[in-house]
Amino acid sequence: MSSRVVALGGGHGLAASLAALRRVTDDLTGIVTVADNGGSSGRLREEFGILPPGDLRMALAALCRDDDWGRTWAGILQHRFSGEGPLGNHALGNLLLAATWDRLGDTVRGLALVGELLGAQGRVLPMASVPLTIEADVRSRTSPYPVERVRGQAQVASTPGEVLGVRLEPADPPACPESVAAIDSADWVVVGPGSWFTSVMPNLLVPSLREALVRTSARRILVLNLVDQPGETEGLTPSAHLDVLVEHAPDLRLDVIVADRRSVAGDSALQHVARRVGARLVCADVASRERPDQHDPELLAQVFTKVFSEA
Amino acid sequence: MSSRVVALGGGHGLAASLAALRRVTDDLTGIVTVADNGGSSGRLREEFGILPPGDLRMALAALCRDDDWGRTWAGILQHRFSGEGPLGNHALGNLLLAATWDRLGDTVRGLALVGELLGAQGRVLPMASVPLTIEADVRSRTSPYPVERVRGQAQVASTPGEVLGVRLEPADPPACPESVAAIDSADWVVVGPGSWFTSVMPNLLVPSLREALVRTSARRILVLNLVDQPGETEGLTPSAHLDVLVEHAPDLRLDVIVADRRSVAGDSALQHVARRVGARLVCADVASRERPDQHDPELLAQVFTKVFSEA
Repeated sequence: MSSRVVALGGGHGLAASLAALRRVTDDLTGIVTVADNGGSSGRLREEFGILPPGDLRMALAALCRDDDWGRTWAGILQHRFSGEGPLGNHALGNLLLAATWDRLGDTVRGLALVGELLGAQGRVLPMASVPLTIEADVRSRTSPYPVERVRGQAQVASTPGEVLGVRLEPADPPACPESVAAIDSADWVVVGPGSWFTSVMPNLLVPSLREALVRTSARRILVLNLVDQPGETEGLTPSAHLDVLVEHAPDLRLDVIVADRRSVAGDSALQHVARRVGARLVCADVASRERPDQHDPELLAQVFTKVFSEA
Repeated sequence: MSSRVVALGGGHGLAASLAALRRVTDDLTGIVTVADNGGSSGRLREEFGILPPGDLRMALAALCRDDDWGRTWAGILQHRFSGEGPLGNHALGNLLLAATWDRLGDTVRGLALVGELLGAQGRVLPMASVPLTIEADVRSRTSPYPVERVRGQAQVASTPGEVLGVRLEPADPPACPESVAAIDSADWVVVGPGSWFTSVMPNLLVPSLREALVRTSARRILVLNLVDQPGETEGLTPSAHLDVLVEHAPDLRLDVIVADRRSVAGDSALQHVARRVGARLVCADVASRERPDQHDPELLAQVFTKVFSEA
């Protein structure tokens, strides 16, 4: 029987972990941050008051099978309209989700239906039932004062300042009940990789989701990013990423931390911080050869297989 | 072996004949008028310079199977976004077609791909390879002069005047080659029902398509409308509909004319006009009980079965 695996995050990071995990298990759930306010998602959120669909779409595309049908669908979902007109830059998959939600009046059922139509290898859930706003404390990189508030995922992700921490608004949003249930009944929970402050930390800031992550009997894996991101995590070492996580969720224990061998070479503090959260550090080559800033799903899948088998 | 059947038209009329014909044959092609300039189609045509997708979408929805998968897809294709925003009133299926065309750069391949994803029971082709404009001569209903030119399918369909005839612009558009080939190799060709001047007549105005309709060895069926349409065909009797067709395509012979028994009762000229174009008149109850202005696909399918078997 397949392990029950839940992966949390958003954007390209979650897509990478899902693309790897669907090779390893038949029981996979992606739980997606719903705080995006930029681009196509931001416009749809504004026009219809719906959850920002972009990261949910990307997760569904990552779950499409590696055959003609799956690749065709993934391509169509991800396709963005060209031009500057009313549809310009909208991803078709975002519109498909928005139409399905509008039709069914139920986000979770809509995601299940679209997943079924695509033949997705796993399911996708939102982390919260309402759209969220990210707010960050940001310090200028040239002078220590003042610490400014920056509102909005898109704004935080592109701030030139140093992000000190993030909050959600509303501060205690209703978690998606199916997401809480998935964490409660999981064998493995995978957090990261992804935009640290705007995709990964938000998962830990929905109180009932964090409580589920803390109380679940599942083993917890953290996958570290390959590189720091301009703006959001500029200059942050891997161990500093881990420090950020501890600050945002002090009660969360981890079992395994997966890091790219080359990315963490020279970060002498990492082993120590890993031990502090209770985790074993697994270093492996998981970066794509063509795109060294992205995880290779096949290599990441090999690491998950090994980690799952060693438990 | 199934008869090779081609149905021409647009809008709800073509959707009705396709929904009937997919019950009768496994080899079905819908050839769709591409002159719409109103609503969602008009906006997409303007934003991207593409064929107006609306009638193509409606034809694909009509070809969706009568099972959960088919009904779900048909519903999603037909779903229109609410509100007055940038997406308001766009049908999701129109956006799916537009994205697929943008992606593949090929209208016919895009239609085939979407049809395959939906599991459509037949294929859909545009009648021409370029978007068309309808222009009509319209006479006021209160005074015989002047005869005015009205441009645009939406404008012609809603004119309060009497439509005397329609033209296409460009006048000699390139027919879709696959559509010509489908007519050439068909066993049966079905024209109508549908908006007479704006969906049905345009099929006869693309020169190489009309030539194919005239030269094909297929037998030709005309399905008459159930009612006249406010504006476009207001006050037009069934036999006057047939007169309009003869005026627009004098060299076209027909084999069978299918009419709703109740709709043509009292039209004493119909039998005579039918004979003039070489056709046998088949009268049957084909109107929906719930919506007497729409054909019932099941009843229409019974008529097609009978007509095909008697040939």
